[in-house]
Amino acid sequence: MLQQMVRPSPISATVDFDAEGVSHGFLRLPYSRDDAAWGSVMIPVTVVRNGIGPTALLTGGNHGDEYEGPIALFDLAHSLRPEEVTGRVIIIPAMNQPAFGAGTRTSPIDRGNLNRSFPGRPDGTVTEKIADYFQRVLLPMADVVLDFHSGGKTLDFLPFCAAHVLADKMQQDRAFDLVRAFGAPYSVKMLEIDAVGMYDTAAEEMGKLFVTTELGGGGTACGRTATIAIRGARNLLIAAGVMQGEVAPQPTQWLDMPDADCFTFAEDAGLIQFLADLGDRVEAGQPIARIWPTGRTGLPPRELCTSRAGLFTARHFPGLVKPGDCVAVVAVEIEGA
Amino acid sequence: MLQQMVRPSPISATVDFDAEGVSHGFLRLPYSRDDAAWGSVMIPVTVVRNGIGPTALLTGGNHGDEYEGPIALFDLAHSLRPEEVTGRVIIIPAMNQPAFGAGTRTSPIDRGNLNRSFPGRPDGTVTEKIADYFQRVLLPMADVVLDFHSGGKTLDFLPFCAAHVLADKMQQDRAFDLVRAFGAPYSVKMLEIDAVGMYDTAAEEMGKLFVTTELGGGGTACGRTATIAIRGARNLLIAAGVMQGEVAPQPTQWLDMPDADCFTFAEDAGLIQFLADLGDRVEAGQPIARIWPTGRTGLPPRELCTSRAGLFTARHFPGLVKPGDCVAVVAVEIEGA
Amino acid sequence: MLQQMVRPSPISATVDFDAEGVSHGFLRLPYSRDDAAWGSVMIPVTVVRNGIGPTALLTGGNHGDEYEGPIALFDLAHSLRPEEVTGRVIIIPAMNQPAFGAGTRTSPIDRGNLNRSFPGRPDGTVTEKIADYFQRVLLPMADVVLDFHSGGKTLDFLPFCAAHVLADKMQQDRAFDLVRAFGAPYSVKMLEIDAVGMYDTAAEEMGKLFVTTELGGGGTACGRTATIAIRGARNLLIAAGVMQGEVAPQPTQWLDMPDADCFTFAEDAGLIQFLADLGDRVEAGQPIARIWPTGRTGLPPRELCTSRAGLFTARHFPGLVKPGDCVAVVAVEIEGA
Amino acid sequence: MLQQMVRPSPISATVDFDAEGVSHGFLRLPYSRDDAAWGSVMIPVTVVRNGIGPTALLTGGNHGDEYEGPIALFDLAHSLRPEEVTGRVIIIPAMNQPAFGAGTRTSPIDRGNLNRSFPGRPDGTVTEKIADYFQRVLLPMADVVLDFHSGGKTLDFLPFCAAHVLADKMQQDRAFDLVRAFGAPYSVKMLEIDAVGMYDTAAEEMGKLFVTTELGGGGTACGRTATIAIRGARNLLIAAGVMQGEVAPQPTQWLDMPDADCFTFAEDAGLIQFLADLGDRVEAGQPIARIWPTGRTGLPPRELCTSRAGLFTARHFPGLVKPGDCVAVVAVEIEGA
Amino acid sequence: MLQQMVRPSPISATVDFDAEGVSHGFLRLPYSRDDAAWGSVMIPVTVVRNGIGPTALLTGGNHGDEYEGPIALFDLAHSLRPEEVTGRVIIIPAMNQPAFGAGTRTSPIDRGNLNRSFPGRPDGTVTEKIADYFQRVLLPMADVVLDFHSGGKTLDFLPFCAAHVLADKMQQDRAFDLVRAFGAPYSVKMLEIDAVGMYDTAAEEMGKLFVTTELGGGGTACGRTATIAIRGARNLLIAAGVMQGEVAPQPTQWLDMPDADCFTFAEDAGLIQFLADLGDRVEAGQPIARIWPTGRTGLPPRELCTSRAGLFTARHFPGLVKPGDCVAVVAVEIEGA
Amino acid sequence: MLQQMVRPSPISATVDFDAEGVSHGFLRLPYSRDDAAWGSVMIPVTVVRNGIGPTALLTGGNHGDEYEGPIALFDLAHSLRPEEVTGRVIIIPAMNQPAFGAGTRTSPIDRGNLNRSFPGRPDGTVTEKIADYFQRVLLPMADVVLDFHSGGKTLDFLPFCAAHVLADKMQQDRAFDLVRAFGAPYSVKMLEIDAVGMYDTAAEEMGKLFVTTELGGGGTACGRTATIAIRGARNLLIAAGVMQGEVAPQPTQWLDMPDADCFTFAEDAGLIQFLADLGDRVEAGQPIARIWPTGRTGLPPRELCTSRAGLFTARHFPGLVKPGDCVAVVAVEIEGA
Repeated sequence: MLQQMVRPSPISATVDFDAEGVSHGFLRLPYSRDDAAWGSVMIPVTVVRNGIGPTALLTGGNHGDEYEGPIALFDLAHSLRPEEVTGRVIIIPAMNQPAFGAGTRTSPIDRGNLNRSFPGRPDGTVTEKIADYFQRVLLPMADVVLDFHSGGKTLDFLPFCAAHVLADKMQQDRAFDLVRAFGAPYSVKMLEIDAVGMYDTAAEEMGKLFVTTELGGGGTACGRTATIAIRGARNLLIAAGVMQGEVAPQPTQWLDMPDADCFTFAEDAGLIQFLADLGDRVEAGQPIARIWPTGRTGLPPRELCTSRAGLFTARHFPGLVKPGDCVAVVAVEIEGA
Repeated sequence: MLQQMVRPSPISATVDFDAEGVSHGFLRLPYSRDDAAWGSVMIPVTVVRNGIGPTALLTGGNHGDEYEGPIALFDLAHSLRPEEVTGRVIIIPAMNQPAFGAGTRTSPIDRGNLNRSFPGRPDGTVTEKIADYFQRVLLPMADVVLDFHSGGKTLDFLPFCAAHVLADKMQQDRAFDLVRAFGAPYSVKMLEIDAVGMYDTAAEEMGKLFVTTELGGGGTACGRTATIAIRGARNLLIAAGVMQGEVAPQPTQWLDMPDADCFTFAEDAGLIQFLADLGDRVEAGQPIARIWPTGRTGLPPRELCTSRAGLFTARHFPGLVKPGDCVAVVAVEIEGA
Repeated sequence: MLQQMVRPSPISATVDFDAEGVSHGFLRLPYSRDDAAWGSVMIPVTVVRNGIGPTALLTGGNHGDEYEGPIALFDLAHSLRPEEVTGRVIIIPAMNQPAFGAGTRTSPIDRGNLNRSFPGRPDGTVTEKIADYFQRVLLPMADVVLDFHSGGKTLDFLPFCAAHVLADKMQQDRAFDLVRAFGAPYSVKMLEIDAVGMYDTAAEEMGKLFVTTELGGGGTACGRTATIAIRGARNLLIAAGVMQGEVAPQPTQWLDMPDADCFTFAEDAGLIQFLADLGDRVEAGQPIARIWPTGRTGLPPRELCTSRAGLFTARHFPGLVKPGDCVAVVAVEIEGA
Repeated sequence: MLQQMVRPSPISATVDFDAEGVSHGFLRLPYSRDDAAWGSVMIPVTVVRNGIGPTALLTGGNHGDEYEGPIALFDLAHSLRPEEVTGRVIIIPAMNQPAFGAGTRTSPIDRGNLNRSFPGRPDGTVTEKIADYFQRVLLPMADVVLDFHSGGKTLDFLPFCAAHVLADKMQQDRAFDLVRAFGAPYSVKMLEIDAVGMYDTAAEEMGKLFVTTELGGGGTACGRTATIAIRGARNLLIAAGVMQGEVAPQPTQWLDMPDADCFTFAEDAGLIQFLADLGDRVEAGQPIARIWPTGRTGLPPRELCTSRAGLFTARHFPGLVKPGDCVAVVAVEIEGA
Repeated sequence: MLQQMVRPSPISATVDFDAEGVSHGFLRLPYSRDDAAWGSVMIPVTVVRNGIGPTALLTGGNHGDEYEGPIALFDLAHSLRPEEVTGRVIIIPAMNQPAFGAGTRTSPIDRGNLNRSFPGRPDGTVTEKIADYFQRVLLPMADVVLDFHSGGKTLDFLPFCAAHVLADKMQQDRAFDLVRAFGAPYSVKMLEIDAVGMYDTAAEEMGKLFVTTELGGGGTACGRTATIAIRGARNLLIAAGVMQGEVAPQPTQWLDMPDADCFTFAEDAGLIQFLADLGDRVEAGQPIARIWPTGRTGLPPRELCTSRAGLFTARHFPGLVKPGDCVAVVAVEIEGA
Repeated sequence: MLQQMVRPSPISATVDFDAEGVSHGFLRLPYSRDDAAWGSVMIPVTVVRNGIGPTALLTGGNHGDEYEGPIALFDLAHSLRPEEVTGRVIIIPAMNQPAFGAGTRTSPIDRGNLNRSFPGRPDGTVTEKIADYFQRVLLPMADVVLDFHSGGKTLDFLPFCAAHVLADKMQQDRAFDLVRAFGAPYSVKMLEIDAVGMYDTAAEEMGKLFVTTELGGGGTACGRTATIAIRGARNLLIAAGVMQGEVAPQPTQWLDMPDADCFTFAEDAGLIQFLADLGDRVEAGQPIARIWPTGRTGLPPRELCTSRAGLFTARHFPGLVKPGDCVAVVAVEIEGA
């Protein structure tokens, strides 16, 4: 066990994280397989460093079908100049590169969900090896972590930035300050019930400031949500003291998802018809969707109702639904958070 | 050749199209395969008949990943009462049932694109057999045809109803009247350059009034677009004299797509960042999207510009783009059409 | 068109069909593909010839998941001695060799159902090329054809031998004589409604005596049904005058399937529970099977009833059923046929 | 390790196991994947409770291609009334629901063989999570467990009910009493050599009475074997004191499979010809099957012989056989067990 | 039929074939599919034009797993300057772009073998549409055609350049002159027995000078064979009068493959052991390879012998062999051709 | 943990390793799966024993797409006579039989790379169970181990035999003596940096003499490299004292791969053009390959240079290259090793 802990990561970086200026390169992870006996997974990385200061680690593609983060980070990696920085910015637009390349939530190599694979293993699956490298090499370098998410191909969200409710209230408050600086239309205080295996948890347990987002979904990004991501990343870097400039304040609505009643699940397969749209206010017990059986015409739909009042915040995206799919999430608006 | 023309369709209906009242049933198409030597494709169908009057044929699922039409038609098949009808309504929510069941544009059986398979063949592929049945059995029964489309998993559209510019101006005008009655937010006069194989063309060549739609996309439907479809179908049935009641007038903006300059194509693979959103007015030569190469960070994006001014009407949906994908469509607004 | 008719088959035989004695070899069909640029499909064939006399063509594996025929024919090819023969026996245990090799009804190469591919094409798919070779090379050599079938992986049959009701009553009667000689437990007079593309039809149109079987199913063969096939082939060869010896008479029950009422189809997916077994006598309107919906417990099953009285002769085999699958076939017993 | 033991199962039940009367619902297991980021596996469950008394846990679909059990249990879940019960009956017709839905022995999600996955893990694969829920939640509730099996798509069995030879002879004798009550045509005393990972073992180690079956096979169920399952379940519930009524006694033949000599394996690929059928008495050294090489005609078959005398009890089902497949099982008849 | 002949190709070029200088662009072929409703196949093309003179059409990737041609043509497209040219050079390194992109002989879209798809169809499969564009648009522009082939993933060849024996001896002689100029280590006079569907035949029937190659194989290219291709293309362009400079003469050995005896086929599956290597002289009847059965150790191999004496010119490449694969080709050396 | 160590292997051998003479049989590994509930993996094995003496364990197919070893070992298993042996030779031509059967580096069952799976687990994946059997049953029997490798489908090597630099210099020197006896054209002293999971390491840690090879690649074997393998195996057996006769001395060039600078990796996808061939001497910084982007013509290639001078010893094989693939290996020549 001890021996395993000290086994080095198989990943090697082609960039020097301590070099001044801009470095573009790769995290290279050897991956022997049928179509490449001596092949590797190559995860692009950019480091922008300028003198002494905090380190921000910016990541996208934790899930491979979420696009606002990668757009903002390929843009930032291309445009950020060292003279704008005080300290260091590490940019990884496609954390789970195999998933990002395939346009899928999980890795096509091992079906690994990177965000449930922490702390990872140096001798595990490809996804676990990536997690291990973040756990033991990248997170320790960072002071602030911004991890971009969106709904992916099967969920759609109101665009929000979020941080977790934490035991360490100072750590929590500083993270919420960054959320406020990010400036998404909605901001969420998340209470993670089952935090096992998450990147978020790994970072927070090391005392890092960790901020995340959900900025849309459906496996696409529109101009509006990409702009939120680009602006939010710069705002956060400024607020964290890593980038010069001034945070452009944006109005935001704070939300809370206090318990399991926020979620409505399908029990039947069929064609889903929503009776409300994201952003609508809904009442408790209000029909929010119907599932039409598709094997015959003439049958009645099964109706799904909300369990609590609030804002319709997230929903199932594909036109067909399967038993067990989460269909709708309702969040509670918080006054003046 | 003559012999082939008279070969009967292998499809048999379990409903009697001439029966009064509501009949729910199937179009059964024998399909022998490895997992069902004596299997069949079953296409649900509802017929609502009440006395003498015109026949409306309403179809969805021509492409299997477009959902506003199926929602409106499963709803209508369930709710339409004979006493509301004068004549006959034939409702087929999932024309290309195998594609609809799989949630894909084309048939998983033969990869057939039903809307390019007309007039079909009784001894062809499964998709061609379906086309043949519509060509030789269903279209001849109809006076008015409403075929629902949306963008599917890979395109997104401003919601519009449309009919074709036709040589027979009387036929054309009556179709545009139905488009106006449908009442989508946008209405389009389509000039089909390559109409070979389309269901539209098959219907129009028989002199039928043919109306179609594009009501969103991305492989989903939201509450708002489903409502447009449900209301539009009832409006159209009323305007066509098949259903009693009054058309609820809706404001609409007429659009035109005059030539190939409306379309912008990608020449590179990558991550797509849109610089405008559907519904935005754009100028000719305006950058409308960027494609980021994803193999490395630090490279510049390739910029795509519009060729003409107009309304941003349709776009590529997935976050990744491939060479040759249509990225953006710009339509011209028509005053007072 | 004329040119196509005279285009030779691409298949070449490594055996000489006119050579005396036993020849084992192949029908070699060039098939260029990704994993063999200059590859071929190899169909094993045995020819046993002894002087002047009629030619019997014995085939199995027309569908690749039916096993009684191949067992009888690999056995016969291995054991038949020239001195037992008067004339010629051509034995092809696996007509659609790619399907037989894969254990599937249709060809894994082109999903071709060989028994619906006649007369075939020399420049068509692999399956069409095989059909063309039988059409233009093998059938013309034959006087008598015995083509073995069973139910395959998705159907199960009472074991029977059959021939078609034909316009040429002399041809028909001689075929029924061979059916009687074959000596299966059941014998069927088949009236083919849609005979297009069948091997049977191709042979009969050339005036050949054509006999077929259904000897069980489920994608297996048991000892009892294999014995029926082995004995039947020898009996038929003797009755046809190609093999010496005496037909061992077997009792048989003659059956008829007069119309579409013999067949019961599923309209729903689910778990199938049969309420009778093959060989049972059933009444018209009797519940013969139930389909349990499997998405929830507590729902009632859908009940399927027979349309006519008779003998339960064939049934759906897999435990799950799909909409459109044929569930049960009831045949009528003919007295003293 | 300790920590892992106390981690709760991710599965939640939508039924209250302690509620009186009939409850239909689901075991919901969250399963995030590419086509459902917030999806779940839904395992239908029915609980019938009436006052104080023992709990019987009835399961089918442990392997997903075995159908007698699911038929009996969907039927029982639909028909069992609380007033027939004394205590509680928990009915789960499709334990490994993903496998059952796919019609495969193992789970299509992780290829897990549920019956080799015990005791399972709350943070393991989907199959391991199901095992863990049975191990830690359901089995502790039960007094008697009846787990239905059949041969599945690749094996066929004489229909039997069975229990294990156990160290605790009282536990063993009570289980054999239940086997006798079940009333299958054959009854087996099983000595499990490698019991690691089995549901059986998990239950027996907790001191539960555990009864299992093999009721046919081939991936189908016939009317006769479904009837055995339905009657057997009721008989067993009555014998266990959970259901009122009287056991209808059935004749049964007791069998034993004492050692490895009962099993005959193929060493070659080919077409299998059985020389005996299930239920036949065979002698030691008797040829029981032949394997025909299929690459060429004219080659001799390889003959497989039994190692011991007895009743031909189980066999390979598909028409083709692979090296290493078990071809035949011979069991020894026990007089007056 | 007439109508079909005049139907225009769906392919549009983004380059102007008549423009002076260097143009890089695409042949864009609309291809609607599940993952791109309005997608296209994009075939890169380069045109280098300088004044009046003949047109050479240079193509690679006719089969997608043959690499010497694409290397030479991507290199030439990048390096060729207009001032080196007299007339026009059209360079298409990846004719069957979908196959080239997938690294497979045939198209992953429709499994089309482009070199057996001529003359193609404007309304056929994607591969047939590409063939049609060459047939009706590109070949008519050309005076000289050089089409690069190699053995691909499943064959290996001695490197040769070749032209066909033709009825028009003047056309033939001029083509052989170009073969000589190309300067491969071997040169072949090919007599095509079945020329139906080939690009070669399409070009030759229009009276074009057509030259082809086989320059190695195995799905790779080495430095030596890439150099032969690069030098050969320039030599041929000079000899054809399209490029300035002087042909560098290379020694070559002329070969002939007169009949079917040149080819040896496998009849068995197994592990192949070659007893000679490409370039070796072999005698008629000499063992050239053994096929080891792999199911068991201890069995003898099957030995394959040549049918004629000559040079071992081509062979099966993969380590495993299937029945029907061509194992070896022996060519006859021609003195002083 | 202790309990796991003593759990027996599920593999049983059908041969008696201690029997005198030649035994051909199988290692049978039960493997229950969807297409064979009671199936097994069958690994052919031959044991040749003659009296007292050392045991040599000869293995091929550790990776399933490497062919020189299997050819040599099927040949040896067929031809080796007991009287040639002193002691025992255990021959396993296809260690990872499922991979060998599929022609892939890793197992198609579990994608296991056998050579990274040691010491294996008796309750792990199929590949881990094979490793465990070698670890606990076969390696302990052996004194000398020869494990054949080649480059497989994606790499190509100069043919060499090799042993590791070890801490135990006596063990190392005796292994190098066997390498010298083997007599490949090249001989390599390997310093394994990451030896975890290798068969080599497992054997060496038990003090066995372990010799390995790389004898070509590309997923094929030519006559020359097969001869090296056949001769080398006999030479090694003689040198190890297990076989009688005399080693035929062969000239060899000793090579060393001292550090990571020997390896050059691709960072881009594209078409690879090698500028040198295996066996060429290269200088440090010399361009050794170019990668052509294939999406467009007219773009420059990316050039890859060596990091050190030496002999071009191994290279990427397929014509297309992916980011992260090892493109070239340069080894240093050792004088008079």
